[in-house]
Amino acid sequence: MGTDGRGNPCKKFHIKPEIRVLGIDDSAILDERVLLVGCVFRGGEWLDGVLSAYVSRDGLEATEVIIGMIKGTKHFGQVRLLMLDGITYAGFNTVDVASLYQKTGLPIIVVMRAYPDFGSIRAALRHLDRADERWDMIRAAGEIKPVTTREPDNPVFIQYIGICIEEAGEVVRMTSTRSNIPEPLRVAHLIAGGIVLGESSGKA
Amino acid sequence: MGTDGRGNPCKKFHIKPEIRVLGIDDSAILDERVLLVGCVFRGGEWLDGVLSAYVSRDGLEATEVIIGMIKGTKHFGQVRLLMLDGITYAGFNTVDVASLYQKTGLPIIVVMRAYPDFGSIRAALRHLDRADERWDMIRAAGEIKPVTTREPDNPVFIQYIGICIEEAGEVVRMTSTRSNIPEPLRVAHLIAGGIVLGESSGKA
Repeated sequence: MGTDGRGNPCKKFHIKPEIRVLGIDDSAILDERVLLVGCVFRGGEWLDGVLSAYVSRDGLEATEVIIGMIKGTKHFGQVRLLMLDGITYAGFNTVDVASLYQKTGLPIIVVMRAYPDFGSIRAALRHLDRADERWDMIRAAGEIKPVTTREPDNPVFIQYIGICIEEAGEVVRMTSTRSNIPEPLRVAHLIAGGIVLGESSGKA
Repeated sequence: MGTDGRGNPCKKFHIKPEIRVLGIDDSAILDERVLLVGCVFRGGEWLDGVLSAYVSRDGLEATEVIIGMIKGTKHFGQVRLLMLDGITYAGFNTVDVASLYQKTGLPIIVVMRAYPDFGSIRAALRHLDRADERWDMIRAAGEIKPVTTREPDNPVFIQYIGICIEEAGEVVRMTSTRSNIPEPLRVAHLIAGGIVLGESSGKA
């Protein structure tokens, strides 16, 4: 029995090529209300459904909103795994991954394009209310590991909750079919940008 | 030299598997402003970009809005073909396909899940202003042909402008990789529904 990135026992599970993954990204911050887009993907292959919700800039309700999005969708019974694009949405609306895992029962992989700069994050948090609470959530998301997907010298970095590192790495690689990041997150990013700005911009 | 569905000479062109197709669908009508979503797809395989704009319910500016969307995108130089989900958006905001073709230079395939019921359309138009203008646009979109994609007994119906029927049928079949309708339209529909309703519903 292995442990996840938070030191808890992790589920070993067989990863099917069409495993349903829900990837969630946010739009650019244009006002106080920021769009979250969820993409239900079959592995790294095709889009099965699109979800959306709004969170407030620098608020603290993203965890509850995401739980509602997941538990409210008709895809809930099929989805096997969540992917988050970092754990702060809409600025520093920080996700409590332990609670998200516990309340949905779904393993979570947090994907980051670069190793987070905790010094800058900590400094930025000083300007916000409930800074310690946000900081605790950020620290509690667990160990950060590199995973190489398509670009040999450009790993992504992941945190992994309720899943062992071997399976987490396998899902991230398997779903990165079109770019260096998993397709559910690439497409959620394209949609969020395309809807809010009128045109999407790739960053992957 | 063949002719398109409007009797004009049609371009014969080689259809590459990764031909860039822009598919446009609208959301459900929740208020007077209706979301249009454009998906730039590489053939029937993957999403390259997302565009969005708004049109008014039963307005008459959809043609201009779509022209702006197409000519304004960074993908304009790559896109080779437009696919429309019928020619009326946001109720009866009717697209003038002749003008759309002329102003963008892009061949257009209008895809319909069923043969249009012109009697009902004509009757519904009576309640709107500029009914004759709308009706003329509907009639001018040209000949309607069935194309069988994935379901042998459930053809889709197309109109084809600036493209010959052989190529039009080939693109429609080639891009219908995941359902009975072309992927650029299936995904545009999922996105429009997911954004406006919070969750997408498949109709394909």
